[in-house]
Amino acid sequence: MTNRLKIAIVGYGNVGRGVHEAIAANNADMELYSILTRNPERTKKSFLGGSSGVDIPVKCIHDIKNELSWKSLPIDVAILCGGSHHDLPEQGPYFAKFFNTVDSFDTHANIPKYFKEMDETAKSYGKTAIISTGWDPGTFSLERVLADAFLPESDKYTFWGKGVSQGHSDALRQVLGVQDAIQYTIPKEDAVSQVRNGENPRLSTKDKHWRDCYVVLKEGADEEKIKNEIKTMPNYFADYDTEVTFVSQEDMNERKKKMPHAGSVMTSGKTGQDDKAIIEYRCRWDSNPGATGNILAAHARAAVRFSREGKAGAYTILDIPASYLSPHSKEKLLKDFM
Amino acid sequence: MTNRLKIAIVGYGNVGRGVHEAIAANNADMELYSILTRNPERTKKSFLGGSSGVDIPVKCIHDIKNELSWKSLPIDVAILCGGSHHDLPEQGPYFAKFFNTVDSFDTHANIPKYFKEMDETAKSYGKTAIISTGWDPGTFSLERVLADAFLPESDKYTFWGKGVSQGHSDALRQVLGVQDAIQYTIPKEDAVSQVRNGENPRLSTKDKHWRDCYVVLKEGADEEKIKNEIKTMPNYFADYDTEVTFVSQEDMNERKKKMPHAGSVMTSGKTGQDDKAIIEYRCRWDSNPGATGNILAAHARAAVRFSREGKAGAYTILDIPASYLSPHSKEKLLKDFM
Repeated sequence: MTNRLKIAIVGYGNVGRGVHEAIAANNADMELYSILTRNPERTKKSFLGGSSGVDIPVKCIHDIKNELSWKSLPIDVAILCGGSHHDLPEQGPYFAKFFNTVDSFDTHANIPKYFKEMDETAKSYGKTAIISTGWDPGTFSLERVLADAFLPESDKYTFWGKGVSQGHSDALRQVLGVQDAIQYTIPKEDAVSQVRNGENPRLSTKDKHWRDCYVVLKEGADEEKIKNEIKTMPNYFADYDTEVTFVSQEDMNERKKKMPHAGSVMTSGKTGQDDKAIIEYRCRWDSNPGATGNILAAHARAAVRFSREGKAGAYTILDIPASYLSPHSKEKLLKDFM
Repeated sequence: MTNRLKIAIVGYGNVGRGVHEAIAANNADMELYSILTRNPERTKKSFLGGSSGVDIPVKCIHDIKNELSWKSLPIDVAILCGGSHHDLPEQGPYFAKFFNTVDSFDTHANIPKYFKEMDETAKSYGKTAIISTGWDPGTFSLERVLADAFLPESDKYTFWGKGVSQGHSDALRQVLGVQDAIQYTIPKEDAVSQVRNGENPRLSTKDKHWRDCYVVLKEGADEEKIKNEIKTMPNYFADYDTEVTFVSQEDMNERKKKMPHAGSVMTSGKTGQDDKAIIEYRCRWDSNPGATGNILAAHARAAVRFSREGKAGAYTILDIPASYLSPHSKEKLLKDFM
């Protein structure tokens, strides 16, 4: 057990806890060595309630004494669990100086820029940084590239949901008179069926998904006015079929306990003259942070293996052989998985 | 266009023709340079009827003059399209001396042995050999390993079909009184649904698939006797629900024009304490040789890229990053596929 990968979790929100659970599920070859967080006291409280992690050292990210000692910690890889808006753009390049890293940076449009920054830093400091992994970007990106390679000139579709969109839930909460809200993105069954049947439809944004909103009103708020304001909100809801349902705070609290996620990547093309071919990758996770946590943990193996091979710099899931994500030996993979 | 990969097809049966069509679909970065075959005259006839390949040199595998000149041919990779029973065990190690190779060796139980042989030869001669790729072994193997890495301790299921099983069709043709036959392997919908619903069923062989047989009788053959003989045939049919339908040779000829294949890899597990997770990879190909051909062609890129990096030896799809299979640049993948 002494050869287990020593992992640090940086940031202990939902995803950080998902990674914590994933490390426990992978304890044959990895162990949680430390948690680095902005607020160690709050973090300690949040996991002392649970059954694991009691002896894990929790360190403050912003304590200069800790900063000076990062390099001396025997951490094989740090999994960065902060958000993509504010945390990772700063924490990624910072921690890539000290540790091999894995993160789930998910602002799609900024991935090339983030890759470049992480690549430069990681190369300068001789570290491996695996960026932007999780389900999308992550496994969905991988499946898009695989299916495109196997089916050139094919039509590609990504469906998200049923799952909670944090961004859209936040947008609902900005509406005057709204006390709390949650939004589920749901694929349109018609569209999914058309693709699955090989009809290769042209689908607009509105054709692919609809938006299911649950809203708790503040006292005295005007239902009709708020419903209208939501349905016509540009960028977020105006371009979609949107349903709004008003619920109690108790109902909302129950909903917030579950953060499911599902989705599919579908690729439709042909081989030869006119032989149709369809490849579909679907997943359904009861827990979105659980999904991200498990995928990040598997990538910790790849980060360490790359690092040991001297591969300094930034990488994505597209650069990683599947065997590098697996806990199994090459012999076992050849014998039992091929 | 001068930088296109120069590919040789070795063996020009169904899969060889599938690869030929796949190279045409990927002509932005690859071209068919030569066909090596046991019977050049028959091969020339088989593709002179089509629209492509007229100028392709077709060489005889067994011509000693050719053997002496293999090394001097500017072939980047040879795609070996022979069968796993008789051709590849001999042709694999032979051609790995001269070329980088890609093959679809699919006798699962013998993959470790075949890997070892190919690895030793390819290493000795400084070549890259990618073995056992196609759909299963191949993309299904990859998906089994990925899902296992993301969902440790999960239940794994592979369903094949609806598709033609060549081995079972051959077994039918051995029955006395049978003139011709074809067998479709079909997953049981019940079993697929149970898995998809997260019920994690224990499924026997019989629970997962049933076997749909179409048989042309010789004149005077006894329907009932033959039906009984088929349904009780050990290894092939006795352990399955098996249907036998007698058809005319005309019907059979129509059936044989289509060689569809489909299947799915399903992985069902959990994250955290009790959050369910299911990952499903499905594909449906109208043409089984088309599927194998397209997947082999994509692996030609990886073989050449590995070779240029000095990676001599044998590899499987589990060793290959997705970006190595793709025709696109790293920049495009980061920008458009992540």
